[in-house]
Amino acid sequence: MQLSTRHLLGIKNLTKEDISLILSTAEQFKEVLQRPVKKVPSLRDVTIVNLFYESSTRTRFSFELAEKRLSADVINFSTSGSSVSKGETLLDTVNNILSMKVNMVVLRHSASGAPHFLANHIPAAIINAGDGINEHPTQALLDAFTIKEKLGNLNGVKVAIIGDIMHSRVSMSNIYLLTKMGAKVTVCGPPTLIPKYIREAFGVEVNYNLKETLDWCDVANVLRIQLERQDQVLFSSLREYNLAYGVSKNLLDSLKKEIIVMHPGPVNRGVELDSDVMDSKQSVILQQVENGVAVRMAVLYLLSNRTN
Amino acid sequence: MQLSTRHLLGIKNLTKEDISLILSTAEQFKEVLQRPVKKVPSLRDVTIVNLFYESSTRTRFSFELAEKRLSADVINFSTSGSSVSKGETLLDTVNNILSMKVNMVVLRHSASGAPHFLANHIPAAIINAGDGINEHPTQALLDAFTIKEKLGNLNGVKVAIIGDIMHSRVSMSNIYLLTKMGAKVTVCGPPTLIPKYIREAFGVEVNYNLKETLDWCDVANVLRIQLERQDQVLFSSLREYNLAYGVSKNLLDSLKKEIIVMHPGPVNRGVELDSDVMDSKQSVILQQVENGVAVRMAVLYLLSNRTN
Amino acid sequence: MQLSTRHLLGIKNLTKEDISLILSTAEQFKEVLQRPVKKVPSLRDVTIVNLFYESSTRTRFSFELAEKRLSADVINFSTSGSSVSKGETLLDTVNNILSMKVNMVVLRHSASGAPHFLANHIPAAIINAGDGINEHPTQALLDAFTIKEKLGNLNGVKVAIIGDIMHSRVSMSNIYLLTKMGAKVTVCGPPTLIPKYIREAFGVEVNYNLKETLDWCDVANVLRIQLERQDQVLFSSLREYNLAYGVSKNLLDSLKKEIIVMHPGPVNRGVELDSDVMDSKQSVILQQVENGVAVRMAVLYLLSNRTN
Repeated sequence: MQLSTRHLLGIKNLTKEDISLILSTAEQFKEVLQRPVKKVPSLRDVTIVNLFYESSTRTRFSFELAEKRLSADVINFSTSGSSVSKGETLLDTVNNILSMKVNMVVLRHSASGAPHFLANHIPAAIINAGDGINEHPTQALLDAFTIKEKLGNLNGVKVAIIGDIMHSRVSMSNIYLLTKMGAKVTVCGPPTLIPKYIREAFGVEVNYNLKETLDWCDVANVLRIQLERQDQVLFSSLREYNLAYGVSKNLLDSLKKEIIVMHPGPVNRGVELDSDVMDSKQSVILQQVENGVAVRMAVLYLLSNRTN
Repeated sequence: MQLSTRHLLGIKNLTKEDISLILSTAEQFKEVLQRPVKKVPSLRDVTIVNLFYESSTRTRFSFELAEKRLSADVINFSTSGSSVSKGETLLDTVNNILSMKVNMVVLRHSASGAPHFLANHIPAAIINAGDGINEHPTQALLDAFTIKEKLGNLNGVKVAIIGDIMHSRVSMSNIYLLTKMGAKVTVCGPPTLIPKYIREAFGVEVNYNLKETLDWCDVANVLRIQLERQDQVLFSSLREYNLAYGVSKNLLDSLKKEIIVMHPGPVNRGVELDSDVMDSKQSVILQQVENGVAVRMAVLYLLSNRTN
Repeated sequence: MQLSTRHLLGIKNLTKEDISLILSTAEQFKEVLQRPVKKVPSLRDVTIVNLFYESSTRTRFSFELAEKRLSADVINFSTSGSSVSKGETLLDTVNNILSMKVNMVVLRHSASGAPHFLANHIPAAIINAGDGINEHPTQALLDAFTIKEKLGNLNGVKVAIIGDIMHSRVSMSNIYLLTKMGAKVTVCGPPTLIPKYIREAFGVEVNYNLKETLDWCDVANVLRIQLERQDQVLFSSLREYNLAYGVSKNLLDSLKKEIIVMHPGPVNRGVELDSDVMDSKQSVILQQVENGVAVRMAVLYLLSNRTN
């Protein structure tokens, strides 16, 4: 089987079959990662560039490990110390890299749509590792993989996405993926951080009350509060945010059921998530990270044209 | 066959035979790079350090790919995050690295002559990846490779080098190489950016008129304008520079013949080169980048003592 | 044989047998590094992260080479361009990395005790590559290896440690190692840079006079003066420091015997060590660097659980 697309630009343009294929392929790679020998020769002689125009720990790391475990040749490229500071355009930079016979580009960029623009102009496969406030598709895929691993299914699962929905590429990709796969989605957060059109545009519910939202859901995907947004009067203070929308152990214990807590990381302990929740059995944050490598191996493998 | 030198410090001290040997070896590596499997075991168990004291995209990238495709072990070292900021001398830094059994050093440094100084003091092979305003030999070699690929020959070819000749290590290395190999060279640019002695010292022609220069040449090698030099009153403004010395499509169409347009990159679109020229059939800029990997593989291989 | 510890946090908690085992294993790896093929398959399929929260040249480089020559998969992580700037805790960062199936962590951190803290919370093996002003165990091990190589023994050897004892993790690790192995240690430096309790606490002698100290010792381990400490009125000026505690050729020539001069690097030529001493036969500084790779290979190998 093959994906319907040559690139992974976002979840928006994937079919249900694409998503299922990526998740089932990732299951096989996860099994590989449990072995003592975690390397497979699948992408031997494939050269991949990690082109990161924004800082990142886990995403860059996770892609690099995924690539190396597929036996690809890996070159890292980050903004500082490069021609970017010399004013070269993104397309010229990428065309230069591709002239050196690079097969795949993993791109993180602060401009929404940057990978889509590139995809129209270059022959190599592009994997979007996060573009502005648009999408972060591998994050949504690893979130879905983790939910499916825990609950056996995506169809019918009730997922709450909590926090700054407005500026989050993680929430966008999750909403696309979950609604396509039959899950029910409620977004929850301060009204200033939830887009007004979101119910009509994306078929998700909106609830400004955290307790009600948690009572409803099977899975709470808690987003990171970007500390640098504090100045923008979108919410009054970190302390007040924590009181209204922070997920605490007390709150979880007050629910009638045990829900699953997810977070894309890095976590601000004591802001959007209390420390004891993060370290509790309900939290699957580190499993998400683990699954990220398997999901990225699946994406890279499926887009490499090494399948047959 | 072997090179007459243990290092690649510049084109100045290469013989015609050295240059021919590098170019013919590069032809073989270019053929390797067209294959699905682009890796050869030539430098297995050779450790190479890329020691970059100045920022770079394509040169560092190109060397790293060349090294990895030769199966060398590669270690990157750049200024930030290193002892350099602690005031260690260049020679002490390099001697430390060599003590760890590193075989070859690829050096970029802002000081003209830095690799020559090192070559007198260390046993490892040094490849100059650009030293101050002195030389950038692998750039001249890939430029020559590209001209030869397009025109079949270097002898008798008419090459114009256009722009800031004064501060360009690319122009120096090109002048040395082209005159050695029998090409005819004219330099063209604002009088403030062309050294006064250049005709007498290097046997090249000088022409301050761009149209006349383009009418004469087979190949135009357009240099990058360093935007940071604007303050130095060497030319009045980027806009005026573009009007007098920018290579435009109109200008090219007004010539009686079709010339080849080269540029060492990164390009300032709309300054030294108009966008439609860069993207036209006459531009071989991306071929230069592609050939750069093959040329650097040839240099590394020939200097590695793995030949016999 | 096996080490008594799962981590290398410092010399303090190693036994004499541990130290001897590391040094004898390093001898075998040093022999490997003399061969044309310097790579062994010992750590194939082991993934190691170099997690450097402080800048470093030779230590990071030396670990990376050691890891690659053991055939480990290596991922580098340094502060800039990472989630660290986003306020994630050290433990969360490391747990994230480990979730991706990383086997060993080489950690440099500005906080004394950071690796010890981690060791209580994570399953992977940790190697301390320098923590604040506490310990730098691989430096002490390579210093000991070098002394043993030169003098055949550690027991009974007289070692002077000269300079800023107060703020030096190198001096702490050396004192622990040398006293455990039966060497005699004298520390020497300005009174402001020597802790008051050191004689009683660690069983070393204190001498504020450089000439007397050098007359006594077989080996002088000269510490780096941290130029950034000049502002702190711990000593009056670099020039006065050099006059009182700088090791000069004249001073060495005035001794009745030929002592060995060591330095952990990077050297401030003309401050703690004169240039002609550094470049003399008595200096074993570059041998120390060479031995560093062998010692780090030994530590990584012994902690990898690949021994049997």
